[in-house]
Amino acid sequence: MHKLHVVKIGGNLIENQNDLSRALSAFGSMDGHKILVHGGGKSTSEMCKKLGIPTKMHDGRRITDDAALEVAVMVYAGWANKKIVAELQKNKLNVLGATGADLNMIQAKKRPVTDIDYGWAGDVVKINHTVIKKLLTDNIALVFCAITHDQQGQLLNTNADTIAAEIASAMTSDFEVHLHYCFEKKGVLMDINDSESVIEYIRKDELITLQNKEIIADGMLPKLHNCFYALENGVEKVFVGNTDMLESENTLKTSLIL
Amino acid sequence: MHKLHVVKIGGNLIENQNDLSRALSAFGSMDGHKILVHGGGKSTSEMCKKLGIPTKMHDGRRITDDAALEVAVMVYAGWANKKIVAELQKNKLNVLGATGADLNMIQAKKRPVTDIDYGWAGDVVKINHTVIKKLLTDNIALVFCAITHDQQGQLLNTNADTIAAEIASAMTSDFEVHLHYCFEKKGVLMDINDSESVIEYIRKDELITLQNKEIIADGMLPKLHNCFYALENGVEKVFVGNTDMLESENTLKTSLIL
Repeated sequence: MHKLHVVKIGGNLIENQNDLSRALSAFGSMDGHKILVHGGGKSTSEMCKKLGIPTKMHDGRRITDDAALEVAVMVYAGWANKKIVAELQKNKLNVLGATGADLNMIQAKKRPVTDIDYGWAGDVVKINHTVIKKLLTDNIALVFCAITHDQQGQLLNTNADTIAAEIASAMTSDFEVHLHYCFEKKGVLMDINDSESVIEYIRKDELITLQNKEIIADGMLPKLHNCFYALENGVEKVFVGNTDMLESENTLKTSLIL
Repeated sequence: MHKLHVVKIGGNLIENQNDLSRALSAFGSMDGHKILVHGGGKSTSEMCKKLGIPTKMHDGRRITDDAALEVAVMVYAGWANKKIVAELQKNKLNVLGATGADLNMIQAKKRPVTDIDYGWAGDVVKINHTVIKKLLTDNIALVFCAITHDQQGQLLNTNADTIAAEIASAMTSDFEVHLHYCFEKKGVLMDINDSESVIEYIRKDELITLQNKEIIADGMLPKLHNCFYALENGVEKVFVGNTDMLESENTLKTSLIL
């Protein structure tokens, strides 16, 4: 089977033009088929602030009202996505930037209201792997932002880590899929104050222990749940680290194993 | 040859949700292959105003500095394009929303600086008709916003009427192309104060007379130049009118003829 790299790059990498350029250059240099998934959270909060729209969060997830959705779509699907597409085209990588609404590639539904109403936050329902496979085999690389739709005309704001895990999982019947979560650190750290204290391997059964010792908390916990979800759904390899790991297999990083 | 409809919808139609829904429903009902091109000029000016970015115009064209480009890309490629894509998907039309940077479909170059520097305004250099033909024959309808790129990583703000004329012209070797310029009026009016005074046919050699009589002026003149450019480049039929003309061939409208 052909190899498919699914690479998620996080918010901080997108803010800084130098970091972004390095990440995109590393992405372009990878062998095999490629899909990039990007967030853009901080830019959205900043744009909301400029427009006087209050940013509401709950458990690290944005509560997306009408105004916040418009800003999220503008920032993710507009500026962030197209800036990335233009730079990859400069690097001679033929890419298509897309939301889940384009070619109906990612269907989602509004997150059900419980104690909390997340507004226009979407949970992934289905990845259209037939369409994605066709584009990849036509030698097109894909750049997804974290916007999906419900097929009823509603755009939805969706977690980018989750989209990456869902796409990676959905493509395993056709490709040998490697999933890479890139952020500014070298991996999951044993000591948050020591940037070299990378935990090289995390087995799923170690997660509870790491959580109890408060080594893993906050945003890292749902990210690792996405990692193990992908492994349980047939993804061959899952890594957490900085963009150096896209360039060389020997880079220090965290590998997740079942 | 198969028929291809290239439909440009103007700014005012995009602002109003009811008008937009009607336009998209009419677009979806057309037979044959389909490409939609949209502007969004008024929304961009409004967003610039909210963000405190001055709108600078010269001869009806935007002077696009760094800040204005970011807003244009957010509004055109982000909110306007994806709102249209989501609504067409609801209508069961399989569409891909794109800028010229996506799949390198529209290459442009920064407009040369003369007495006036238009900033990041782009003039179309080449339409990638091979890629567009492939998508259309895969039964994908395309929705282009007026953002292009220079293949050097720079996004460019490009006139939507011009993009529509250039795409229509580029596809004539593969399709029988009909080009429709839709706006809020029923066509080119003999008397601007009488919405029923539609000029049903305009020949190219009548343009000067209409211009001298000040019947055609302002934004309509470059639009008509785009119309005749398309006809001279093999486009079969070119119309100016409201979106009713997409639903029925008998609708009152202006037909352009060489």
